[in-house]
Amino acid sequence: MSEAKQNKLVTVDGGNAVAHIAYRVSDICSIYPITPSSDMSELSDLWATQGVKNIWDQVPQVIEMQSEGGAAGTAHGALQTGALTTTFTASQGLLLMLPNMYKIAGELTSSVFHVAARSIAAQALSIFGDHQDVMAARMTGFAMLASNSVQEAHDSALIAHAATLKARVPFINFFDGFRTSHEINKIELIPDEQIRTMIDEELVFAHRNRALNPDNPFIRGTAQNPDVYFQGRESANSFYNAVPAIVQETMDELAKLTGRQYKLFEYYGDEDATDVIVMMGSGNQVVEETLDKLNAEGRKLGVMSVRLFRPFSMEHMIAALPKSVERIAVLDRTKEPGSAGEPLYQDVITALAEGLNSGLIDKLPRVIGGRYGLSSKEFTPAMAKGVFDNLADDKPKNHFTVGINDDVTHSSIDYDPSFNIEPDNVTRAMFFGLGSDGTVSANKNSIKIIGESTDLFCQGYFVYDSKKAGSQTTSHLRFGPDEIRAPYLITSANFIACHKSNFIDQVEMLDKAADGAVFLLNSPVGPDKVWDELPEPVQKQIIDKNIEFYVIDASTVARNAGMGRRINTIMQTCFFALSGVLPRDEAIAKIKAAIEKTYMRKGQEIVELNFKAVDASLDHLHKVKVPSKISAKHGMMPAVAPQAPKFVQEVTAPMLAGHGDDLPVSMIPVDGTYPSGTARWEKRNI
Amino acid sequence: MSEAKQNKLVTVDGGNAVAHIAYRVSDICSIYPITPSSDMSELSDLWATQGVKNIWDQVPQVIEMQSEGGAAGTAHGALQTGALTTTFTASQGLLLMLPNMYKIAGELTSSVFHVAARSIAAQALSIFGDHQDVMAARMTGFAMLASNSVQEAHDSALIAHAATLKARVPFINFFDGFRTSHEINKIELIPDEQIRTMIDEELVFAHRNRALNPDNPFIRGTAQNPDVYFQGRESANSFYNAVPAIVQETMDELAKLTGRQYKLFEYYGDEDATDVIVMMGSGNQVVEETLDKLNAEGRKLGVMSVRLFRPFSMEHMIAALPKSVERIAVLDRTKEPGSAGEPLYQDVITALAEGLNSGLIDKLPRVIGGRYGLSSKEFTPAMAKGVFDNLADDKPKNHFTVGINDDVTHSSIDYDPSFNIEPDNVTRAMFFGLGSDGTVSANKNSIKIIGESTDLFCQGYFVYDSKKAGSQTTSHLRFGPDEIRAPYLITSANFIACHKSNFIDQVEMLDKAADGAVFLLNSPVGPDKVWDELPEPVQKQIIDKNIEFYVIDASTVARNAGMGRRINTIMQTCFFALSGVLPRDEAIAKIKAAIEKTYMRKGQEIVELNFKAVDASLDHLHKVKVPSKISAKHGMMPAVAPQAPKFVQEVTAPMLAGHGDDLPVSMIPVDGTYPSGTARWEKRNI
Repeated sequence: MSEAKQNKLVTVDGGNAVAHIAYRVSDICSIYPITPSSDMSELSDLWATQGVKNIWDQVPQVIEMQSEGGAAGTAHGALQTGALTTTFTASQGLLLMLPNMYKIAGELTSSVFHVAARSIAAQALSIFGDHQDVMAARMTGFAMLASNSVQEAHDSALIAHAATLKARVPFINFFDGFRTSHEINKIELIPDEQIRTMIDEELVFAHRNRALNPDNPFIRGTAQNPDVYFQGRESANSFYNAVPAIVQETMDELAKLTGRQYKLFEYYGDEDATDVIVMMGSGNQVVEETLDKLNAEGRKLGVMSVRLFRPFSMEHMIAALPKSVERIAVLDRTKEPGSAGEPLYQDVITALAEGLNSGLIDKLPRVIGGRYGLSSKEFTPAMAKGVFDNLADDKPKNHFTVGINDDVTHSSIDYDPSFNIEPDNVTRAMFFGLGSDGTVSANKNSIKIIGESTDLFCQGYFVYDSKKAGSQTTSHLRFGPDEIRAPYLITSANFIACHKSNFIDQVEMLDKAADGAVFLLNSPVGPDKVWDELPEPVQKQIIDKNIEFYVIDASTVARNAGMGRRINTIMQTCFFALSGVLPRDEAIAKIKAAIEKTYMRKGQEIVELNFKAVDASLDHLHKVKVPSKISAKHGMMPAVAPQAPKFVQEVTAPMLAGHGDDLPVSMIPVDGTYPSGTARWEKRNI
Repeated sequence: MSEAKQNKLVTVDGGNAVAHIAYRVSDICSIYPITPSSDMSELSDLWATQGVKNIWDQVPQVIEMQSEGGAAGTAHGALQTGALTTTFTASQGLLLMLPNMYKIAGELTSSVFHVAARSIAAQALSIFGDHQDVMAARMTGFAMLASNSVQEAHDSALIAHAATLKARVPFINFFDGFRTSHEINKIELIPDEQIRTMIDEELVFAHRNRALNPDNPFIRGTAQNPDVYFQGRESANSFYNAVPAIVQETMDELAKLTGRQYKLFEYYGDEDATDVIVMMGSGNQVVEETLDKLNAEGRKLGVMSVRLFRPFSMEHMIAALPKSVERIAVLDRTKEPGSAGEPLYQDVITALAEGLNSGLIDKLPRVIGGRYGLSSKEFTPAMAKGVFDNLADDKPKNHFTVGINDDVTHSSIDYDPSFNIEPDNVTRAMFFGLGSDGTVSANKNSIKIIGESTDLFCQGYFVYDSKKAGSQTTSHLRFGPDEIRAPYLITSANFIACHKSNFIDQVEMLDKAADGAVFLLNSPVGPDKVWDELPEPVQKQIIDKNIEFYVIDASTVARNAGMGRRINTIMQTCFFALSGVLPRDEAIAKIKAAIEKTYMRKGQEIVELNFKAVDASLDHLHKVKVPSKISAKHGMMPAVAPQAPKFVQEVTAPMLAGHGDDLPVSMIPVDGTYPSGTARWEKRNI
């Protein structure tokens, strides 16, 4: 597509990828960290402390305020001084910015707000990802640019910063909280010289010249009355009308530099598709990968990714859709109770109705809308197929939900959860660790080793349970020869490690194992006796799925190697030894190289200690001979005491056991009201 | 329709009418006054201070906070104690309430927020009315009830308070800021016993029982994770599904008591209409009155007032539309730059598309959308006709504006401003006064006198220019035998009074005079010489329009009567003497009765002083003999100095002269940036 040569590859998460751009093109970052946008604020703060410079060879000023209201006010004020200003936020934080956002947009001020999109606290708070927050900002007059992956969020950040200078309309650059902001992926980093090429110095100068300035006094921030406010509100129309072309032009410029071509509305799939999904955010990748498989089986499916959500260009949308489309399912990752329909769904219907009126299309496709992925609820290929299947139905459900079991108002559609499209050439590894045991850090390190020293692509995503430190973490790592486009949790792992021995009695993990998977258990019980310690369901899974079962007493190895209770290097070594991501010797060499790099400053002795631990790991890693029959005399440990009351048995217990996703709507309190005093029934012997 | 007998009639403004209800059904009003909702907060505060009781014989607690954020947090907290809680707000104030509103709705909490809908500060702040604020709250999960007049806002407040208890969904009760909140009209007041009938005590008890309570502990306000948040968000669907029927049922109950029947979607017009306007708020009355006239001429027009905007009931909307409809113009009193269309427009299209899909209609009417009335921009019968005319066009403008001249993006539609439907039997009086001269108070008093002591209906609306005290006020009063349904300024007055003599040189006022109107000028110049003092355009209007011209030296009368500079009673007396609203003797008797009532506490002497002023007024009121020819040697005084710069000449001057409405979009700064130092060019010899 382009002669652009490949830039440096790095393994970073979405927050880092976005902050990298935002920081480099800003004079001021006004911040108030809120999950899942915090990393962007905190990285900017760290970089400023370290003296990292922006593309103008200056260290940006990072200003932390008392709330997002203050951060937005500071941004508004800083912009009025002519400073290139950015901020990072999410959820209620974005809500507190709304009043200033109307002003910033009304004054046609170039700026980008980066949003790791998150749920809004309603029946309960949630720190997780969906689009409720950005949808609540869609009337402010900000342009809104969505992206679907770590690479795209990185690219989109630069497109937004470049386009806002051309358009004078401020931008929200948004991407899925956690799923994109916290997914580690291997991306091409845009080097500073390309950033400089994208940012037009003349426009920066023009922005600075619009500053309030005592040497060139004028008034901004007046009151207007019925006589002229309406005219004033309409006076910016031409600026909004120009945005779509400006953004496309900016996307094209980026494509020339990087080879990565984006479009305002990006269609993927069969050129003669009859059934098309329209959506925003990471779910697009899920649908793309899914329909490749389904189209190969003869279906005619497509997906249209909406990148420029505001201003919404009817003409571009209709041009991007195949003429053959008969049915459209619009997926919104939000919920607006009582609305006539979720926002993207209504936009698509409106655009099609206008397209029909203006003769751009000659018949209205059937359009239905659905909700998915609220609060980082998984959106999987199985669900994507379910959406296509519902769409193809004679009487498709409208205003449907997918991914839950709504047994009350029956909004949910069915899907087959066993539908799976993970390619065989991808290593899919899961690690069950304790909140503070170093498992997540070691896995991030493994991704870095593999991502930056091999041609393999990689992905890491980390799930923390609700109780943070001292509780369970699950790491989901993928490695493979092609770009990893799988923004959902692993359900078919070919490597599973249990880093905390007693989790094996409490947490179902081998239900996620693929046939023939490797299972590594950290246990003080030796290879001869460990089998008999396993609960019945685990033995059954190991036998039924032909699982290769390994055990290591990592705690003893760590203690003997003088590393105290730090088992993470040892378990990491075993992962490399067993997973087959890299040849074993190469892997061990790379671990040792990483150790050398990390610890050399602390002296050769520490390095040798770690080397010894690596070697000892392999010496103490044992394959367990798996009997052909179940011998266990106990099952999984119940999550709650048997005398616990009904609600605890029926709702709390499945949540504790990791089966909260299966709870139907009828089991969840309608108004966020829970019985109190239920913690005492939990059996959390971590 | 009902056997309900008429309740007591009162003349009040919309804010008072709404607060009257809200106060009576609340335990707690948590307030932070913001224009144009301030009166509701301040009245509640006053009533509490005076010991006025709610329907449970308690004095509600009125709590003023530091901002609307605090008021909303207090409301949320108070509701969680089981208190019936209300608040009043608008504009940015509502924006600051959004985070708490998501929580209040998510927790299914019965409450009503009363909103005098107002613009949001964008390119400039504006205190005036449109629906930008409530539209920014449409995703919170609050139900939203719109009303179109003072009476309706009063009724709607009670419907909302009654329905929220049944539905558990909180309500926004909104009405047009200023146009409804500050219009004085004669309404039937719902007496306390009817309020008690509407408010179900069992449901109040149920609300109190849902309070957080140490004697019955439970938890509300938790965090939810990806496993259950989505189910939790969907768990309230059935509550939202139930709202439309609940609201209709509540409307029906009110109808039984009062005879005033409302519907969720209320259609008015030809039963076989081909062209229908859909809208919310006071503009509906304008369209209703306009189409009566046009339908009488053979057109087939209708208007559908949307009362329950959220939850939006597709079925009810379609059922309310005549089957014959071919074309629909949806009018939104808001602007969301970059949207695919304004919100009500998108809702109507969505509902129709779904109605088509589900077979409720067999063909999609052509739907266009337009914006009107931003920031209290006038919406007149002439504009309503313009909207119908555009709709009937072969190629109607979509996303149009009406009421402005958009010479940049050409969104505006044409209309004939001379189109006028004011009935002959309505007295239409305008008063030009000084900001602090008592004109407005006297006019409010006149309305009260006429409204409460005669069978006449009445309306008052007061326009303040941008500079508040010391500047111009224009009072618009209507009196007539039928309900006054004219929520727009008077453009064809049959009585005009100029209370400040030098305004005659500065302010065009007789351009609003009807043929044969009465013009009363307060002037120190006597009846023989006053003609020669008038500027040429005023003389011309008086002659051309056959105006009866009266003069009084009110300042001298006031001084002589020992009333200092207070001319308002004198001018009021002249109005009653000249306007013909009441027979002169009856009018004078009523003024004197009002004086007696007001001043008796201060002693008979003060009463006599005022009586004397009234009688002296009539003695000093002179009819001026109008010559048949213009004799003036001067024109109107220019609003700015002739050496003022271009912007001041072209933009500031028309605004100062009261012609800001005529400024085209191209003349208004795109980003709210104005030249500074322009005040010195103003000639404001007030």
